[in-house]
Amino acid sequence: MLDMTSLQPDRLLPADPGTRDVARRLYAATAGLPIISPHGHVPAEWLAQDTPFSDPTSLLLSPDHYIFRLLHAQGVPLADLGVGGTQIDEAGSRPAWRLFCQNWPAFRGTASKFWMESVLAEVFGIEQQPSAETADLIYDQIAAALTTPQFRPRALTERFGISVLATTDDPVDSLEHHRTLAADPTVATRVAPTFRPDRYLEAARPDFSELAKSLGVAADIDTSTYAGYLAALEDRRRFFKANGGVSTDHSHADVVTLTLERNEADRIYRAALTGDASEAEATAFRRHMLVEMARMATEDGLVMTLHPGSLRNHHTPTFDRFGPDTGHDIPIGVEFTRGLHHLLGRFGTTDGFQLVLFTLDETVFSREIAPLAGFYPSVYAGAPWWFLDAPEAVRRYRGAVTETAGFYRTSGFIDDTRAFLSIPARHDMSRRLDAAYLAQLVTEHRLTEEEAHETAVDLVTSIPSKAFKL
Amino acid sequence: MLDMTSLQPDRLLPADPGTRDVARRLYAATAGLPIISPHGHVPAEWLAQDTPFSDPTSLLLSPDHYIFRLLHAQGVPLADLGVGGTQIDEAGSRPAWRLFCQNWPAFRGTASKFWMESVLAEVFGIEQQPSAETADLIYDQIAAALTTPQFRPRALTERFGISVLATTDDPVDSLEHHRTLAADPTVATRVAPTFRPDRYLEAARPDFSELAKSLGVAADIDTSTYAGYLAALEDRRRFFKANGGVSTDHSHADVVTLTLERNEADRIYRAALTGDASEAEATAFRRHMLVEMARMATEDGLVMTLHPGSLRNHHTPTFDRFGPDTGHDIPIGVEFTRGLHHLLGRFGTTDGFQLVLFTLDETVFSREIAPLAGFYPSVYAGAPWWFLDAPEAVRRYRGAVTETAGFYRTSGFIDDTRAFLSIPARHDMSRRLDAAYLAQLVTEHRLTEEEAHETAVDLVTSIPSKAFKL
Amino acid sequence: MLDMTSLQPDRLLPADPGTRDVARRLYAATAGLPIISPHGHVPAEWLAQDTPFSDPTSLLLSPDHYIFRLLHAQGVPLADLGVGGTQIDEAGSRPAWRLFCQNWPAFRGTASKFWMESVLAEVFGIEQQPSAETADLIYDQIAAALTTPQFRPRALTERFGISVLATTDDPVDSLEHHRTLAADPTVATRVAPTFRPDRYLEAARPDFSELAKSLGVAADIDTSTYAGYLAALEDRRRFFKANGGVSTDHSHADVVTLTLERNEADRIYRAALTGDASEAEATAFRRHMLVEMARMATEDGLVMTLHPGSLRNHHTPTFDRFGPDTGHDIPIGVEFTRGLHHLLGRFGTTDGFQLVLFTLDETVFSREIAPLAGFYPSVYAGAPWWFLDAPEAVRRYRGAVTETAGFYRTSGFIDDTRAFLSIPARHDMSRRLDAAYLAQLVTEHRLTEEEAHETAVDLVTSIPSKAFKL
Repeated sequence: MLDMTSLQPDRLLPADPGTRDVARRLYAATAGLPIISPHGHVPAEWLAQDTPFSDPTSLLLSPDHYIFRLLHAQGVPLADLGVGGTQIDEAGSRPAWRLFCQNWPAFRGTASKFWMESVLAEVFGIEQQPSAETADLIYDQIAAALTTPQFRPRALTERFGISVLATTDDPVDSLEHHRTLAADPTVATRVAPTFRPDRYLEAARPDFSELAKSLGVAADIDTSTYAGYLAALEDRRRFFKANGGVSTDHSHADVVTLTLERNEADRIYRAALTGDASEAEATAFRRHMLVEMARMATEDGLVMTLHPGSLRNHHTPTFDRFGPDTGHDIPIGVEFTRGLHHLLGRFGTTDGFQLVLFTLDETVFSREIAPLAGFYPSVYAGAPWWFLDAPEAVRRYRGAVTETAGFYRTSGFIDDTRAFLSIPARHDMSRRLDAAYLAQLVTEHRLTEEEAHETAVDLVTSIPSKAFKL
Repeated sequence: MLDMTSLQPDRLLPADPGTRDVARRLYAATAGLPIISPHGHVPAEWLAQDTPFSDPTSLLLSPDHYIFRLLHAQGVPLADLGVGGTQIDEAGSRPAWRLFCQNWPAFRGTASKFWMESVLAEVFGIEQQPSAETADLIYDQIAAALTTPQFRPRALTERFGISVLATTDDPVDSLEHHRTLAADPTVATRVAPTFRPDRYLEAARPDFSELAKSLGVAADIDTSTYAGYLAALEDRRRFFKANGGVSTDHSHADVVTLTLERNEADRIYRAALTGDASEAEATAFRRHMLVEMARMATEDGLVMTLHPGSLRNHHTPTFDRFGPDTGHDIPIGVEFTRGLHHLLGRFGTTDGFQLVLFTLDETVFSREIAPLAGFYPSVYAGAPWWFLDAPEAVRRYRGAVTETAGFYRTSGFIDDTRAFLSIPARHDMSRRLDAAYLAQLVTEHRLTEEEAHETAVDLVTSIPSKAFKL
Repeated sequence: MLDMTSLQPDRLLPADPGTRDVARRLYAATAGLPIISPHGHVPAEWLAQDTPFSDPTSLLLSPDHYIFRLLHAQGVPLADLGVGGTQIDEAGSRPAWRLFCQNWPAFRGTASKFWMESVLAEVFGIEQQPSAETADLIYDQIAAALTTPQFRPRALTERFGISVLATTDDPVDSLEHHRTLAADPTVATRVAPTFRPDRYLEAARPDFSELAKSLGVAADIDTSTYAGYLAALEDRRRFFKANGGVSTDHSHADVVTLTLERNEADRIYRAALTGDASEAEATAFRRHMLVEMARMATEDGLVMTLHPGSLRNHHTPTFDRFGPDTGHDIPIGVEFTRGLHHLLGRFGTTDGFQLVLFTLDETVFSREIAPLAGFYPSVYAGAPWWFLDAPEAVRRYRGAVTETAGFYRTSGFIDDTRAFLSIPARHDMSRRLDAAYLAQLVTEHRLTEEEAHETAVDLVTSIPSKAFKL
């Protein structure tokens, strides 16, 4: 039987003994601080209703695209894992868990291994690594825990020490769960909605006119005109802000920005309502609307975050069967310098405007994002995201961004996860990696330990608070 | 006189003493295992005919483009090195060797230095570094060895412990040497041909109609129609498979894929036969044919490998005088996510289809290749190749690929070399580097040593065997 | 109060004790050698006139775009820092310095922190880190020093041990200051002008005809024809060479090269003189002129250096108010393999032609620059530049370039700075980082210490001397 590496106190700290000593001290200063999670995908409903989790698979595998995508690559059918709304019942849950445990070696070297081991060991007290032999034992132990009150969502949130938890929400969402949580004095965590309008800005979608209509209903504004559409978006942003929202999030293929003539925007919008906007027109409209979102941000003060550069639903047969977010969104190259030229020309130095840039294309860290964040007071270099949220990628991010933009032009960590139980493990990984990076700067006499200590604490307190206006 | 660093037992292992200890143990587990070389360029003829090598220069310099290209950059004319079929005789061999030895400092920090030192020290027992002073001595020692039976190709193959050696072959090749080797019970090495049809798929080549004709002759099928051309390709693939082939290899400027209407493919093919296909038509046809190759792979089971992104023959005057493969193929950026969208949409989850992706553009390791290999059961992340087959580049590859795709979605090492004597050194380097990488994961408590040990062995046994269906 | 890390003798050397020992010895071999600065932006006038520096801000902040850009990102208005010719007087200098000191934590992890600490500690003997508390004390200490003869430009140049200092100059510059310096036997430093013709090659500029005219005046050649324009450029290059120039420098958005028909070049030139050249024509003309510059280089022997890939003046409102070089030139992707295909096809192996390639886009280090420098005798891989001239970026450069091109196809360090006082710190950083890199190669047994020692010395002596024909 293998050890659980997650039980090692020095995990992820540098091998060199002198550097490790420094890193230990830096990590100790942040390990116990509350978790600020300013961008993620946990449903507010879980916390509002505090429903018990049903079974190990639907809690730990089915919602975690990092896990099920690699199992799929190993030959496991997605349907066997309850992915994409395929129903998995009690009878299906245990076999799915066994498939996962048998394929555990596939995760060696991945961040998922670290997170899952942390969840098993620290949340559930499990001491064995997953394997064909241990699968049932682990399954039973988790399943038993899930029936107890300590493993309900609110109890876990409290145990995890989450002080802020941002969700991601549709612009027409009623935010009723957020209001339930805000109204409940027993909930210590601030649960903030995030305005995510992607599909409402994509004028060539077959359902665009319905989306525009639903926006109008939600805002109680007639959206049959472009002016009404803008007003409805502004209204819904205000509604989000009034219900605790601090940011809007945008994830399109690119971040090219431009401003259309009012007449032209109006014309395309009307064409879109009748399904007559061409792909080229819709692309221009979306790029224009990104600038409109920035303009609205300068008015309502919501922080704008960009997560571009993923080619969504790469494998059409899988999409047709399982829907979106089923593990085959694949990154593409992305350009920020040229793309944001127009937007930043208009709002780059506007008071109160804040723009956080995330990327799946590492080449822009040193080439574009750090130089932009190192000049524009509005721009923040977002933490490494998705495929890049892993020990070495985080190290590369720090190595690429810090020398040009320092630490104080960055966003602080975001976990961006649907895997609720992995939130503490993800933040813990980030804190360990920052301690490791800072320790190296200390050992190489680029920072004093005092400076490093202050920076380590800032990275999990004032830095995310400033970037996300918390 | 300088030491030979190649005689250091710990070479390439990490500096940190604790990590080095772990790496030593991991390396010890793989150092003696047989060599699987599933992609390379050694001529089967050498082994079949077991002809003695003639002289140090034509064995070690003239065929090794890593060596002669850097000498050329240092100002040494290619003609003085016997490159590209320029004749070099006994009289020219020794001066060429002296030029190489005088320029030895130019190789500091390169992988070629490691390989050459290993060849000199471990194959020939030479203990001095090359220099103006040692040139003749080393030359004489090698020349003397080459006259002995122990230095003939078959004896060396046996001494090197090569269990599988793939060659790269023209589709019309008779594979007579492969058959000779297969029929000889004294040859323990499996010598597998690789089907490399690049030029037969490029419809704008001036010699396309001759190539198509020769394909027809080889297959005994009339290739004056597109249908015949496809049938001839299918036939030759089967012929390769029947003679031990396991894979096809494709190296074009990009990996864009598309499927033409049958009529359109037919029309372009006919135009190409009369030299009337335009560049644009030929490009579309080649992209279409890449998909046809994948389709054939789903039928005959040959593994498909892609080596794109090199701008061949960058310096036209050198090409005109010395021909292709003379050191000035220069990489360009390449895209896999968009390029393979069509191909993987058709065959990405087809049973038995396997696609190995290599690149000279490191930016796609974390951004495109690892995410593709981490979802599609058919896709394998190919080992670092050519300019990237060197200690730090390999380290970057592991750092970029592993966190998303793990170890078990990779191809295992390929040496891709024409430099026969360097094969053991190249595999040895790879094993040392994998031991170093795994040791770091152990020291940082991301893997247990037991897991690392198992992975190190898998990387040189089951992993290449699976990726190449050996 | 914090320590000054710049007083640590081992700063920037590797943490591992064994590797650090080797690095210390290698660094000791180069630490005291004279400084060769073959590319930079210090005005020759400073040295020729030996004018005392006026105050801390206009010496250390206003000309240093690394410093003022990050202060701007922190919210400090550029006008408060005396940037871009905004006047800052005695009354403004001290408040500006205070703003800088208060924002000192913003520089943690940047190269600027290292350089500034070195300047403060080693040039001025200051022992405290900048902070709100120490701002006035440090200001007074610097201001006092600047009134003494030891802090005048010539004295500092001598103290810094600068043997060669290249400036960057307009083609019509009289080079009077260079001649003053050359004629003065008390000046030991060789101050070489660099021919920087960018704007004279950009035919769509509104001031192109004036520029062409001024070129004609300087050369005393009629530039109303394309032939005259070429002749005038040739003449000015010869003038630069006659006054000690060794290189020409070119910084455009890309490095695409092509040769226009003579008629076409002539036609575009004439159109440009009347303001009638289109953007497309002007781009073609500039790409053509880059090849003409190479052609002239094969005749006059000046080394050609390329610094492409920056989108100049990204924030138009800042440009409108403060002019160019005010911190918002932002890098973009750049391609060398395809771009230089034409130029190198013509001159890549021409005797005496030398082309040094710099980049802000790291992706081309391993993919394009190292392969080009590893084949073409004319091509040198330029040192990491601007945003990449920092400890980790330099490490990545060595890691990406060395394995393909070695050390002897590189340019040696350039400081490229307007921040005169930081020159020793920048070269010191480079020497420490090279020692660190070489030490790792030694510890991993890729080089002997003897080889590493020789290479370390070559990197600051023969290597830049060869690349820049000094």
